[in-house]
Order: sequence, then C-alpha cells, then structure tokens
Amino acid sequence: MKLQFWFEFASTYSYPAVMRIDKAAAARGVEVEWRPFLLGPLFHAQQGLKDSPFNVVPVKGSYMWRDLERVCEKHGLPFKRPHRFPQNGLLAARIALSLDQSMRPNFVKAVYQANFVHDRDISDSQILHAAARRAGLDPLEVLAAMDSEDMKAGLREQTAIAADKGIFGAPTFVTPDGELFWGNDRLEDALDWAVRGTLRPNTQN
Amino acid sequence: MKLQFWFEFASTYSYPAVMRIDKAAAARGVEVEWRPFLLGPLFHAQQGLKDSPFNVVPVKGSYMWRDLERVCEKHGLPFKRPHRFPQNGLLAARIALSLDQSMRPNFVKAVYQANFVHDRDISDSQILHAAARRAGLDPLEVLAAMDSEDMKAGLREQTAIAADKGIFGAPTFVTPDGELFWGNDRLEDALDWAVRGTLRPNTQN
Repeated sequence: MKLQFWFEFASTYSYPAVMRIDKAAAARGVEVEWRPFLLGPLFHAQQGLKDSPFNVVPVKGSYMWRDLERVCEKHGLPFKRPHRFPQNGLLAARIALSLDQSMRPNFVKAVYQANFVHDRDISDSQILHAAARRAGLDPLEVLAAMDSEDMKAGLREQTAIAADKGIFGAPTFVTPDGELFWGNDRLEDALDWAVRGTLRPNTQN
Repeated sequence: MKLQFWFEFASTYSYPAVMRIDKAAAARGVEVEWRPFLLGPLFHAQQGLKDSPFNVVPVKGSYMWRDLERVCEKHGLPFKRPHRFPQNGLLAARIALSLDQSMRPNFVKAVYQANFVHDRDISDSQILHAAARRAGLDPLEVLAAMDSEDMKAGLREQTAIAADKGIFGAPTFVTPDGELFWGNDRLEDALDWAVRGTLRPNTQN
C-alpha cells in the first residue's frame, strides 16, 4: 500500500506530520510518497486569501500556535514558535521535488526543523544548503534545483494536481482509492484507510 | 474535574462530539458542562462571514461532508447528510439554555439526531417539541423558552462569553485551567487535559 503525503513547507501542522509519518507508516507496512506543493496559490484561488488564514483570522492563529505547541509536546517533538510566519518555502519545495523519493524525507525533515525548531529563514539558500548537507545531498545539485526551470514547472504542475484532487490545506494524505485526509491529526486514520479501506473500529469511545 | 463543552446546533462536527462525550467523559471521571452558543455572530465578527465557511469555500465543504461521514462510521454513529445546511439553531439553543444541566444532554442529542440522522428542520417548533418529548421535558416549558426574553438575553451573553474565551468554532472544549480544544477530534485530548493538565504521552507513534 502507498499513501501520498502532500506537504507545504510553510504549513505549521505539516511539521508534526513530517516528523511522525515514517514510523507510523512503517508500523502499518505502508509506503509513503512525499509530495511537495505550494499552498499559497490554492489559498488564493479557493479562498481569495493573500496570507495564511492563521494571520487573516487572529483568533484562529492564537489557537493554532498553542495547539501546535501541545501537539508537539504530546508527540515528544521539539518546537519553538518561529518569528517568521508563513515562511516562503518555494526554493525548498523545488529542491524536494528534484530529489528521488528515498532522499526526500531527510531533507524535508531538516528544513522543517530549521523552521520550527531553530527559527531559521528557510528561503535563505545558505540555510537550505545546510539542510541539504545534513541530509547527505550534493550541494551542487541542490544549488541547481533552486533555479531549475524544470523544477519551477514541475512544482506548478504538482500544485495543479493537488488542486485537482480537492486539496485545500496541508498536510493532506491521499489513499490509493482517492480518499483525502486533511491534517496531522488524521495521519493514523489515513494510514488505516490505506491498509484496510476503512477506519479502525472504535472500541474505546 | 469539569470540562466545558461549547456546541452550536448548526455545527456538523458537533454532532459526533455530542453523541460521544458522555461515555468518553465518564470513562475518565470528568463532569461535562453543556454550553450552547451561537457561532454565526462569531463567524461574522471574527471572519466577516455571513454563511458557513463550508458553503463559502466549496472545496472545504465537499471534504467536510465526506470526512464527517467517515468519522460517524468510525464511531458507529448513524448519519445522513441533511438537505439544509447550515440550519438555524436559535430556538433549540434557547431551549437548551433554559434547561438544568442534567436535562440538557438528552434534549441536545435529540435535536442533533433530528438534523443529522432524520434530516428534519430544527428551526421548526414542532420538531423541537418532538425532541423535547423524547427527552422527557415539559412541552409548555419548552414553548415558553423559545420566546423567552431571558433566554434571548442569556444566549447573547453565552455567545459573548464564548468570544471572550477565544472560541471561533464548534465544538470547543474548555478545561478548568482555560485551555481550548477545538473539534470533535480533540475530545479525548481535552478530557485528558482536564484530568491531568497535560496530554497523554504518545507511546505508539
């Protein structure tokens, strides 16, 4: 079984999903397909937004930051609220797209940690180089991917595919039979569905 | 321990929360305080919305209906997508507010079932009477509550209190120490927090 994992580098709840998905998927024998895309164009096309909904509606933003803090603590993930939000993940997304699937997770995790643990500017090519080094990537290939016309076009295509699938937020998980699950808190449901085509029967509640 | 449970009769994800909270709370020894409020005024004040976000942004609405169907199936709850959305829960909220805490759950559940199982118009006083009868209430008291000036004022006050707490959606759970948890999928977290002031350490993922 394979689960598509659609993430956006600026997305806050994508951070715990990025850090949790490998272990949770492996426990269920599910393969993960890492799919970077850009949420900004979808927010604009679908909701007329030019900024994150968490900035546009401050009461939702306040809640989200506190909730994210609790979620990270629950899962034992380090977290520090970044000064910049949302960050520009364009270059990081082009790099991620240029990598083979097997190389994506380590780079993607390093970038999310730069943003949500170390409060670094992930649109800065030096920060991305550092993340690439930590992920064992070739610095020259990373440099090329940031400005590659193929990656620019490829990322636009990925974003169009996301829109066609009905994606409107991140993280979103898509099962082989086309079910969408939105949000870090749907990760386990998405994996269960990928395995069994249904959700785990609830026996506790 | 006591957990405040803020619900709005038009809210879709409030339905599974309404049906699940008693058992989940009892299992943890938590007392539930049922708090009706109106989400419409908050949507308007906080987000400039005059309709449900699920209608304003169709791609979110499509997702929500499918997700709600899956959530209900997961929890063994009957569900039929209502023809009317969002429904006007004003009269139902006034009735709920007029009841003692001990009488609220049965009435509230009956109204949510009328909406999300039987596809009835919950702004119709006959439907509300039927729900009241099923909940063992006095029909004359219910009739009086629907037009009571006290309940009109009381409901406005509850909605103002909700806004002051930072509530922007339903269902929302508020712990004794003031933590907000938004959404049916945060019910267990909210109960755990009410008991222990932290979230259950995650040992599986």
